[in-house]
Amino acid sequence: MHIVFITLFPAQMEAMATRSIFGRAVESGQIKLTFKDLRDYCESPKERVDDKPFGGTQGMLLRCEVIERAILSVDQYDKYRILYTCPKGKILSQEVASSLSQETGLIILSGYYEGIDERLFSLFEIERVSMGDVVVSSGDVPALAIAEATMRLLPGVVGNNESVADDSIVSGILEAPQYTQPRAYKGHTVPEVLTSGHHEKIRQWRREKGLELTLKWRPDLLAQTQLSSEDKKILTKLLETEGGENHE
Amino acid sequence: MHIVFITLFPAQMEAMATRSIFGRAVESGQIKLTFKDLRDYCESPKERVDDKPFGGTQGMLLRCEVIERAILSVDQYDKYRILYTCPKGKILSQEVASSLSQETGLIILSGYYEGIDERLFSLFEIERVSMGDVVVSSGDVPALAIAEATMRLLPGVVGNNESVADDSIVSGILEAPQYTQPRAYKGHTVPEVLTSGHHEKIRQWRREKGLELTLKWRPDLLAQTQLSSEDKKILTKLLETEGGENHE
Repeated sequence: MHIVFITLFPAQMEAMATRSIFGRAVESGQIKLTFKDLRDYCESPKERVDDKPFGGTQGMLLRCEVIERAILSVDQYDKYRILYTCPKGKILSQEVASSLSQETGLIILSGYYEGIDERLFSLFEIERVSMGDVVVSSGDVPALAIAEATMRLLPGVVGNNESVADDSIVSGILEAPQYTQPRAYKGHTVPEVLTSGHHEKIRQWRREKGLELTLKWRPDLLAQTQLSSEDKKILTKLLETEGGENHE
Repeated sequence: MHIVFITLFPAQMEAMATRSIFGRAVESGQIKLTFKDLRDYCESPKERVDDKPFGGTQGMLLRCEVIERAILSVDQYDKYRILYTCPKGKILSQEVASSLSQETGLIILSGYYEGIDERLFSLFEIERVSMGDVVVSSGDVPALAIAEATMRLLPGVVGNNESVADDSIVSGILEAPQYTQPRAYKGHTVPEVLTSGHHEKIRQWRREKGLELTLKWRPDLLAQTQLSSEDKKILTKLLETEGGENHE
């Protein structure tokens, strides 16, 4: 996969996007990353990347000519899926990342200031992707989030220290608490069951804790998750206990 | 405000977190940013930041001793709000960012691998913050998102090229399309109303386009937004047109 970032901060984006497992995937040739400085696509030293919007609104807009040149500079750009970080877009989810990971090429355009000239959406097929209902300073951090979520789904990118499938969000149940060495630390001891070596009891404990956390923090996830009859029993017990406590 | 990042990639995080307006805010002394390398808090070259979880789950966990030392190394750490990037947490929103921007100090701990030893939540008051239902490689990008969303709300950080209040998400209505120079580009012309100079017509056009986009892409926002009687008229008209098109 080739990912092309179009940004005003190529060096900083490169530093972040190539750290850790992603740097290794670049070295091994699994992923190619290109960081294009939007300013390089101005045709003269006088040309600016941004200008005032028509109609008297505040702020500045990125100009369509400069962005068009940056996109056209990508070899076979029409084979790339073009993304633009924008609060109007569909929200970045595991589903979106999974769909992006099927592509051979992505161009991720970071938004700045008040955004980009709307005509770019007529010149190219550009999808808007949002990081959620929070305003960040520019599209750089959302662009990194899109790239990371996508790249880690490519085969071989995530090593043994991480697992692609076990993650809370993928399974629909939040992960149970986890503990590592030392067994006792300042009076806080690891739950006995986890050091018991009893696999079935550990599995049960984890499922119970996971369901408890999900019920407490993200009950919305339960509606989208396939629950076993064991899960339903656990949830019923949890709800009864909760109910009891509320009435005391 | 002082923000302390605890991370395995301090140089890369610093490059991203100090670019543009944030670098200027650091230079002018409005914001202080510190990037702590978690590895510096190992007591010996043999000590590791991570270890295997108890109970035989896959992956590695960050150890509580090393993280505890990193937090305790912050002068008056008990006056800082401590955040941990975690899919179990509350989702980063404009409301969360606004609450964080009221603090004088934040410690943002990036998660890696399978996360951190659960006992840290007994040792310190730590809030979990999530970037949404998407799995990224580590807590670094979410930590940047938390910091950016917070810092840009501090007075004086956002300059004239950006506006804090005009953003789509803040107003509850998506922003209307925007256009800048040139007026005509490859057959695509800026909508006439925007170059008319007629302020009231421009305002009406913007509101109409904004409502149209919100209805199309993010109808959920409409439920949370105070709508004027003008808005309701526009929406009724849009819904009628939409209905009409569907029936043809």
